[in-house]
Amino acid sequence: MPVSDLLQRFEAVRRRTVRLVEPLSAEDACVQSMPDASPAKWHLAHTTWFFETFLLEHEPPFDADFRVLFNSYYQQVGDRHPRAQRGLLTRPSLARVLDYRAAVDERMQALLTHDLPPPLAERVALGLQHEQQHQELLLTDIKHLLSRHPLWPAYEAPNAAPESASETELDWLPVPRGVYEIGHAGDGFAFDNERPRHAVFLPGSEIASRPVNNREFLQFVEAGGYAQPQWWLAEGWDWRCAQQLEHPWYWRCTAEGWQEFTLYGALPLLRSRPVSHLSYYEADAYARWADARLPTEAEWEHAWTDAMARLPPREAWHPRAATDDGVGQVWEWTQSAYAPYPGFKVADGAIGEYNGKFMVNQYVLRGSSCLTPPGHARATYRNFFPASARWQMTGLRLAR
Amino acid sequence: MPVSDLLQRFEAVRRRTVRLVEPLSAEDACVQSMPDASPAKWHLAHTTWFFETFLLEHEPPFDADFRVLFNSYYQQVGDRHPRAQRGLLTRPSLARVLDYRAAVDERMQALLTHDLPPPLAERVALGLQHEQQHQELLLTDIKHLLSRHPLWPAYEAPNAAPESASETELDWLPVPRGVYEIGHAGDGFAFDNERPRHAVFLPGSEIASRPVNNREFLQFVEAGGYAQPQWWLAEGWDWRCAQQLEHPWYWRCTAEGWQEFTLYGALPLLRSRPVSHLSYYEADAYARWADARLPTEAEWEHAWTDAMARLPPREAWHPRAATDDGVGQVWEWTQSAYAPYPGFKVADGAIGEYNGKFMVNQYVLRGSSCLTPPGHARATYRNFFPASARWQMTGLRLAR
Amino acid sequence: MPVSDLLQRFEAVRRRTVRLVEPLSAEDACVQSMPDASPAKWHLAHTTWFFETFLLEHEPPFDADFRVLFNSYYQQVGDRHPRAQRGLLTRPSLARVLDYRAAVDERMQALLTHDLPPPLAERVALGLQHEQQHQELLLTDIKHLLSRHPLWPAYEAPNAAPESASETELDWLPVPRGVYEIGHAGDGFAFDNERPRHAVFLPGSEIASRPVNNREFLQFVEAGGYAQPQWWLAEGWDWRCAQQLEHPWYWRCTAEGWQEFTLYGALPLLRSRPVSHLSYYEADAYARWADARLPTEAEWEHAWTDAMARLPPREAWHPRAATDDGVGQVWEWTQSAYAPYPGFKVADGAIGEYNGKFMVNQYVLRGSSCLTPPGHARATYRNFFPASARWQMTGLRLAR
Amino acid sequence: MPVSDLLQRFEAVRRRTVRLVEPLSAEDACVQSMPDASPAKWHLAHTTWFFETFLLEHEPPFDADFRVLFNSYYQQVGDRHPRAQRGLLTRPSLARVLDYRAAVDERMQALLTHDLPPPLAERVALGLQHEQQHQELLLTDIKHLLSRHPLWPAYEAPNAAPESASETELDWLPVPRGVYEIGHAGDGFAFDNERPRHAVFLPGSEIASRPVNNREFLQFVEAGGYAQPQWWLAEGWDWRCAQQLEHPWYWRCTAEGWQEFTLYGALPLLRSRPVSHLSYYEADAYARWADARLPTEAEWEHAWTDAMARLPPREAWHPRAATDDGVGQVWEWTQSAYAPYPGFKVADGAIGEYNGKFMVNQYVLRGSSCLTPPGHARATYRNFFPASARWQMTGLRLAR
Repeated sequence: MPVSDLLQRFEAVRRRTVRLVEPLSAEDACVQSMPDASPAKWHLAHTTWFFETFLLEHEPPFDADFRVLFNSYYQQVGDRHPRAQRGLLTRPSLARVLDYRAAVDERMQALLTHDLPPPLAERVALGLQHEQQHQELLLTDIKHLLSRHPLWPAYEAPNAAPESASETELDWLPVPRGVYEIGHAGDGFAFDNERPRHAVFLPGSEIASRPVNNREFLQFVEAGGYAQPQWWLAEGWDWRCAQQLEHPWYWRCTAEGWQEFTLYGALPLLRSRPVSHLSYYEADAYARWADARLPTEAEWEHAWTDAMARLPPREAWHPRAATDDGVGQVWEWTQSAYAPYPGFKVADGAIGEYNGKFMVNQYVLRGSSCLTPPGHARATYRNFFPASARWQMTGLRLAR
Repeated sequence: MPVSDLLQRFEAVRRRTVRLVEPLSAEDACVQSMPDASPAKWHLAHTTWFFETFLLEHEPPFDADFRVLFNSYYQQVGDRHPRAQRGLLTRPSLARVLDYRAAVDERMQALLTHDLPPPLAERVALGLQHEQQHQELLLTDIKHLLSRHPLWPAYEAPNAAPESASETELDWLPVPRGVYEIGHAGDGFAFDNERPRHAVFLPGSEIASRPVNNREFLQFVEAGGYAQPQWWLAEGWDWRCAQQLEHPWYWRCTAEGWQEFTLYGALPLLRSRPVSHLSYYEADAYARWADARLPTEAEWEHAWTDAMARLPPREAWHPRAATDDGVGQVWEWTQSAYAPYPGFKVADGAIGEYNGKFMVNQYVLRGSSCLTPPGHARATYRNFFPASARWQMTGLRLAR
Repeated sequence: MPVSDLLQRFEAVRRRTVRLVEPLSAEDACVQSMPDASPAKWHLAHTTWFFETFLLEHEPPFDADFRVLFNSYYQQVGDRHPRAQRGLLTRPSLARVLDYRAAVDERMQALLTHDLPPPLAERVALGLQHEQQHQELLLTDIKHLLSRHPLWPAYEAPNAAPESASETELDWLPVPRGVYEIGHAGDGFAFDNERPRHAVFLPGSEIASRPVNNREFLQFVEAGGYAQPQWWLAEGWDWRCAQQLEHPWYWRCTAEGWQEFTLYGALPLLRSRPVSHLSYYEADAYARWADARLPTEAEWEHAWTDAMARLPPREAWHPRAATDDGVGQVWEWTQSAYAPYPGFKVADGAIGEYNGKFMVNQYVLRGSSCLTPPGHARATYRNFFPASARWQMTGLRLAR
Repeated sequence: MPVSDLLQRFEAVRRRTVRLVEPLSAEDACVQSMPDASPAKWHLAHTTWFFETFLLEHEPPFDADFRVLFNSYYQQVGDRHPRAQRGLLTRPSLARVLDYRAAVDERMQALLTHDLPPPLAERVALGLQHEQQHQELLLTDIKHLLSRHPLWPAYEAPNAAPESASETELDWLPVPRGVYEIGHAGDGFAFDNERPRHAVFLPGSEIASRPVNNREFLQFVEAGGYAQPQWWLAEGWDWRCAQQLEHPWYWRCTAEGWQEFTLYGALPLLRSRPVSHLSYYEADAYARWADARLPTEAEWEHAWTDAMARLPPREAWHPRAATDDGVGQVWEWTQSAYAPYPGFKVADGAIGEYNGKFMVNQYVLRGSSCLTPPGHARATYRNFFPASARWQMTGLRLAR
């Protein structure tokens, strides 16, 4: 990437993060609604910490305390403030964190006016991809926080929500038997976990042309699917029973019908929208009830590589009702546990902690969601969450 | 109380609460650091809710949602937002809560320009006492929040802390055997739990002329008192072991010696200051180690009625090193469980939930602390907390 | 007590414990159904450990490991096997524990053929009182274990249950105002917590002639008392809500009407029997609903001293439907927190851990129950349990 | 299988289960030491329940209550006694459970004298495989129970432990790149999760000739491996820190050197024995420290199919120090998450709950252990446990 492009891209990504926080008060940006979610202010600071730590390590720090306060999980960088206590950081204030961003941006911009050696340029690119990941987390974390408020306040005015549309019919696309390659190769950016490109054997199957939508999932709910153990993994059933769940997270049944909580506040449950905020357990149970299964990540990647390359750069805070693309509105659970590809190597140093150490008890999600920053997605992208996670924009696509 | 006095008093108390919040950012005022503590913003709103609910119930509400959001524990008023989730209320903002205060103040001021029937005037007086109680809680809750920040930030600048002073000698004052009366009688304000005045039999004992100070308590710590079960109640010992405690809450041992966390930030542990932030378990263990015991609340009240009447109206955020008064710097644990006085009656309606329903598994504290609003204390005052509570300004005085 | 009497009493008490275990299999005697309850085998061994530790400390131990395995809570004796893990002790077997009892009995019998110095004789007497306390616990612990079995098996055949009887009318007995003495004085055995006898001031009240019975308590249940927060202490209400309680422990509503679990298995809820297995919270809520209150322990002792002296030596595993005595069928919660009497002194050494270290967050129960060994009860006896305890034979008597 | 063979096999398997319980008292056989472990008595009864439920469903039950008491997890059979409460079942007694076994055996023997239709014969075979699985669990569960006893009692006398031997050298065996088939095909018994046989692509690698032994693992321990986060999966590190682990489960460091708890009681840690009782986290951390990785289950199966076919039918309660076989002493963690093979189908009815519903958040173990019943193992066998499980006989083999 030419120097000027990298600088331009740096500025665009950094600006977008600040823009995402604009609708929030200092209070909204400070509170942590559960251990898995981080305050918006923390996302603002941590993404800045990443550049300061990995690109500006030879300059005096903006504030030496921030090295600990805003380290997420890099053991090799040193101490970390405990994740579950990020919401206790009322200091620094939101204003001071924005100053921190501005100061680091200034230094980074100075750095980026020069030709960087490739390893450093790659590290900047990684920092920007990292920040884009946090952009999506920032939105899902704010959504969770607002959902815990008894009044279900909106992040953006409801009239900004994407419009309704008619339902797309579901087709089954063939995924032929044979040896194929998956994973990232070549020059463009990819995370370490997408590499190396390698051969897999696919058994021959079919995959749905679009994700499961709310109408379909509501049938499962109304047919009593949440009360019938035969559809559920044993661990999923225990999880459901412990919490007495009867429908997806963010749904509620009111006198006016089903609603879902969105970043636009409560909206009627539009039946043609992809179902979202499912756990792996719910996605798997639905698939079994529908006499199908979740795809493997290899099947998914083989089938959707082309469509992902054509994904339009849209931005919205809730999935559209239907898309011609068939992909890109919700992350899709696969049946594949998150594991290293054959020959996977972690990078040296603290950067090596980026992905590899999470490869246990998580499941791979493919595609991208309406909350994913435009341009961030790739066909080889491997998102991952524990089976019980429901606060991400997570849906499913059937295979058989 | 003449009308003009009540209005003047109303304005003074209400102003003081707002003043206490001035050093705080919106973020400081929003976060909840543990289920027992409430955000400062919540204290601002709830004390206002009290007047709106119990004095202005016939006027249209400032915001109908606030009826639920800021109800603390009055079952008869209706639903309540769960106590442990007060920190999730990023909305309304601090600014809007201050508007709420102003609007209710205006209505109350209008009400208070008229002669109120005695029951209503008493209710206003109760509302002000209630607000004063929350003023102290607001400070202890903020102290807890700041203490959970890794940098131990200050609420007020350290140079404002009360100065050092030499240690006061300890005398033993006689409490003679006989039948005495304790509890509140007469016209002045008192909470229902201080009534009725009633006879008690005192066995004859001695009570210390001042609370235990840091030097004395440090002896217990350095003698290994936290590792010797013989001084501890069994439940206290289990509590200590579960948390691996070795000294009081807010103390820490540094290379420069012992420090304590205060609202002025970290201060050196001044040995002549009354020890504070003790649980009942620690107070009781110390007393046993010192070959003494905690006083009963009847002994305490009998001995300190006069001194409490002479208490000067001082304000500070940490106890003074020594006082001529011998009282009024820290709340003092008594060995008395919090129980109804003979003939205790709760008021009718929701106000009746004020005190009586907490009379189990709590212990009475007597006196007042440096955080208690000037003029709020009384000799008959019965403060109460569970035996494990340590975030209040709680010390002890010996008896034998 | 003459030597021969002490020996005879020793043999009688020790035999009774073994007899209580006879209906149990080795499995019944081994399992621990909750951390608060101990296995019957453990009771057999621990009561023996008491004699071995405190009377035979100069003789070689039966088994050196037992010193740790069967120490309950005596820190000064040394290590203890954790209370919550008593059920893991499948070894020693029940048979070997019975051998342990026989061996210690033999040595104790040899000791008791000689004139013991008074301190040792007192210690033997304490050991026997201790064993009697464990006899009652053994029964309540077994009852809890059997109640957790889905089939509600019986400890003894149902036809052995005490017969039905008609309901006794309730009178109100006066407790006049004045200074009285309570507590134990004189030569007979009493625990340290019953001493010293001391003056108290009673305010003048009335106390019910008999405990609350099942019919009365069922009215509270059927009137919705478990769903109405106004009767409950705040902590009691939280406790009730957390467990979704709707009636007393061991009650169940079947197609054939209300039943209660007893040591005779499931029995119809006989309405004239004293209600039992209440927590303090439930007892207190009922009293408030009935426009009354719990008595203080001083009121109770003043009123029932004579009746306790006349208590017939009956034995049964469930309360009789009505008694002429008005007392002695169920323990009765008082509103008095368990606290030291003025001038209370603990004994020197490990024996001093017997009672004093439990004097926090417990409430005093007075009287005795049908499970209390005949001859064990006294008017000055102070039983105590936490407010949430429900597995003891605990009922209530009203005062006003 | 001819009728007479099935009968003979039935009798042998059933007898072995009873023999395994012979060293245990009724108390040992009743207690449950953690929710994951079941009492030996429950294993005896549940394996019998399996035959009664799935083969004798048309005959009157031995005891109708047992249908619920001894159902493990078959939702479609009906209610189940909660797993974590199996230890509360003091009734039926061990003796009665042995009667239950005898009665069901008698009926089964009658059934097995006739030619069974193939589906029924397969169900009998499944019941025997099921019972063999429980034989191993019975031993690991008893081992856990005895390990929780402070005296570390033995299941069998220490002198019966397998002898020491010198260490086997480690070779690296090639696993060539290419498409291979794994999974069960053909007529012999296999569980549903081993089917269907299907193609996989192997990337080309090397696999160790024997499992990691105690000497090697001790190097990791003594090099501080349990205190160095860089070797650990993030979740594994949190798990280690929460429990403050410093070495494998069942190891302890004494004045006489390292020991491990075994079914023969405490034994010196013999360095040439395979390391066992590791969690997935520990196995994975060791592999990373050793600059290697865990094999996939496909690599494992490809490499060890022949050796598994030649496994001698040995029985012992602790791994041998070294074996010529290179396999069969400890289960070996693979990096493969437990997932359905392509085309996996569950059986109809309750039997279909056998394996499929556990396919989430578990990892596959391959091989067999010294506790696996002789003849039960197969190269295609897929054992599975959660990543944190340590009470099974679980070790590891390296790949690279």
